[in-house]
Amino acid sequence: MVKVAILGYGTVGSGVYEIIHDNDFTEQALNPIKITHILDIRDFPEHPEKDIFTKNFDDILNDDEVYCVAETMGGLHPAYEFTKSLLEKGKNVVTSNKELVATYGPELLAIAKDKNVNYLFEASVGGGIPIIKPMCSSLMSNKIDKIVGILNGTTNFILTEMINKNKDFDEALKNAQENGYAERNPSADIEGHDACRKLAILSSIAWGNFVDYRDIVTEGITAISLEDVKYADKLGYVIKLIGFAEKKQKIFARVSPMFVSKKYPLAGVESVFNAIVVKGNYLGTSMFYGRGAGKFPTASAVVADIIESVRHINAKKAYIEWKPSEPGYMLDINESVCKYFVKCTNSREQIDSLFDNAEFADGVVENETGFITTQMTEGDFKEKIKSLNVTGFIRVLEA
Amino acid sequence: MVKVAILGYGTVGSGVYEIIHDNDFTEQALNPIKITHILDIRDFPEHPEKDIFTKNFDDILNDDEVYCVAETMGGLHPAYEFTKSLLEKGKNVVTSNKELVATYGPELLAIAKDKNVNYLFEASVGGGIPIIKPMCSSLMSNKIDKIVGILNGTTNFILTEMINKNKDFDEALKNAQENGYAERNPSADIEGHDACRKLAILSSIAWGNFVDYRDIVTEGITAISLEDVKYADKLGYVIKLIGFAEKKQKIFARVSPMFVSKKYPLAGVESVFNAIVVKGNYLGTSMFYGRGAGKFPTASAVVADIIESVRHINAKKAYIEWKPSEPGYMLDINESVCKYFVKCTNSREQIDSLFDNAEFADGVVENETGFITTQMTEGDFKEKIKSLNVTGFIRVLEA
Repeated sequence: MVKVAILGYGTVGSGVYEIIHDNDFTEQALNPIKITHILDIRDFPEHPEKDIFTKNFDDILNDDEVYCVAETMGGLHPAYEFTKSLLEKGKNVVTSNKELVATYGPELLAIAKDKNVNYLFEASVGGGIPIIKPMCSSLMSNKIDKIVGILNGTTNFILTEMINKNKDFDEALKNAQENGYAERNPSADIEGHDACRKLAILSSIAWGNFVDYRDIVTEGITAISLEDVKYADKLGYVIKLIGFAEKKQKIFARVSPMFVSKKYPLAGVESVFNAIVVKGNYLGTSMFYGRGAGKFPTASAVVADIIESVRHINAKKAYIEWKPSEPGYMLDINESVCKYFVKCTNSREQIDSLFDNAEFADGVVENETGFITTQMTEGDFKEKIKSLNVTGFIRVLEA
Repeated sequence: MVKVAILGYGTVGSGVYEIIHDNDFTEQALNPIKITHILDIRDFPEHPEKDIFTKNFDDILNDDEVYCVAETMGGLHPAYEFTKSLLEKGKNVVTSNKELVATYGPELLAIAKDKNVNYLFEASVGGGIPIIKPMCSSLMSNKIDKIVGILNGTTNFILTEMINKNKDFDEALKNAQENGYAERNPSADIEGHDACRKLAILSSIAWGNFVDYRDIVTEGITAISLEDVKYADKLGYVIKLIGFAEKKQKIFARVSPMFVSKKYPLAGVESVFNAIVVKGNYLGTSMFYGRGAGKFPTASAVVADIIESVRHINAKKAYIEWKPSEPGYMLDINESVCKYFVKCTNSREQIDSLFDNAEFADGVVENETGFITTQMTEGDFKEKIKSLNVTGFIRVLEA
């Protein structure tokens, strides 16, 4: 029997407890698994196993029989200190904490390697969608060229309401909050920070060097209007919050709303669903789709990592290593290339004098013209629009 | 340095050679990998490594240093005899051969377990789409309720041509053959046999009991007409060849063309792409999408399995076991439940007297009515339509 502890009995932690309690995973893990400790500062006097709760982290750290710990506390502190102590003690840790992985990943992974234990985090990106492990194993034979994802369910729900139900941003956000899809303070989601951390983790895995989320240009969806949605539709696109990363000589990564071609596989991903497109040099385009959040989807990914760790209890652990990135590893956004959707109050003539072969959409807003440019660097683009009276621009993702 | 052999230097086998030759996977496999033998009955006098070719299987079987063998011959014989001998000798085998896995899987997996070696077959389903490993690992914490997939690229290409370009079946098939997406003898694809074997493999993995492909009711797409495509469109569906499997008390599996709701994630999967929806009890709906065939997508999955096997060279191998199924494990198709699209020459009145709440589409074919029934067992459905003059029916997959 293998002892497992849970740190934090919130939404995900209680889901992990319930899944392990309600199922027998002996066959999958090759050993019976038992939750023997749950750390939480709160009391749970009505809980059927109230005796396994503790407020003292040392009860877990110092129990030599605890083999694996699920960290489902979230936040950086004390999750970081706890995780570090556990790994240094030679315990396996699995987590859903994207903030921690995106911030302290390289250090924690190095300790895990050194101690021959697992630090696994399938649940940190895409909830229950299997994406971390396929990138670490099945796609191992490919050089990954590009990652393009809808990585945040809250913003995708809001945008879907705007697109399909013609609600404006504020109304759609309120609806998301009422449905439990957005926090009362929604800024981590709607400003793109949550997607940014997930993109940093995926990029680090894809290219083996640590991509610091602080180096990723990040824009949220708060400025998106129903007029933008209409322009997009007229031109054959839908607006999505897209995490985009690619590697050529340098790595480039960006989180921003984009016009996504209706022919691109991500265009049909609606509501709280997430999806991640991975482009490999041999495989071509593949996509992973599913529920990106929620108690049981996320908890089931944590449990799969527990099973994985227990299954290889006496084996050499497969490890992930994120080497430090050299200064200047990230392409400057001004050197990145794409098409741009632009709104302005200038004449067609003025626009044509600056942009060749622009694709126009008229009649959405009075005295305003919307158009899509050809491909160019963001630096060139920003230089060109200086002479226009631009009311907004959104980057474009082609099929 | 770990020695690897390839059986069969066809499309996939040569792709495996090229990928390993052109890349250094030492970091991923924790050991350098070298192809030391290629078995093929043909001569390759121009090949830069012509000395590693052999026509004698025993050269590979009896070389104790050959650790892993990629079987990319296809067909049942001698692939079966070769694979069995290799596993019995304690060699790891990875394969893209769905026919072999679907036919002799239980026996070969049992030998692999017994000898503590891998028998891996990611490439046998969905080409390069990572699906087998996620089902074996990431989804381990879920009970899988249902698998619904577009499992064959040839038929999906043909149907997409019919839907988007209004070509009839014969013309679309010809086009597929001209583009290299269909064999000169296309029956394994268009009759559904290829999809059937893949569905058998996925079902066996999902439920741990061997699902024999011979127990899966299989219909191809040869009877699908442009009128069917039009009926589908009018009613809000597209026609796809669907592999469908679910487990309630019994397992039920079927390959057939279906009306797929335009709101279902598979509806947008076009051309040669494949996609597999997996429904887990905790995860909900997830989908895996990508190129289901082709030299390099498939070969890259074979190479990923080689790396996986080499990576755990001295470890206890994770094994898959397919227990024999009890007689009667498969639900009779007459007890399966779905909605049906029906074409007939009867009056609305006659139809209404048999089917409550049918949804009608008129005006596609003169003197013919198309309608979709409510949910019912196939047995009841077939009984009811006996009194109609039915010109065809197609099962329906709702969102």
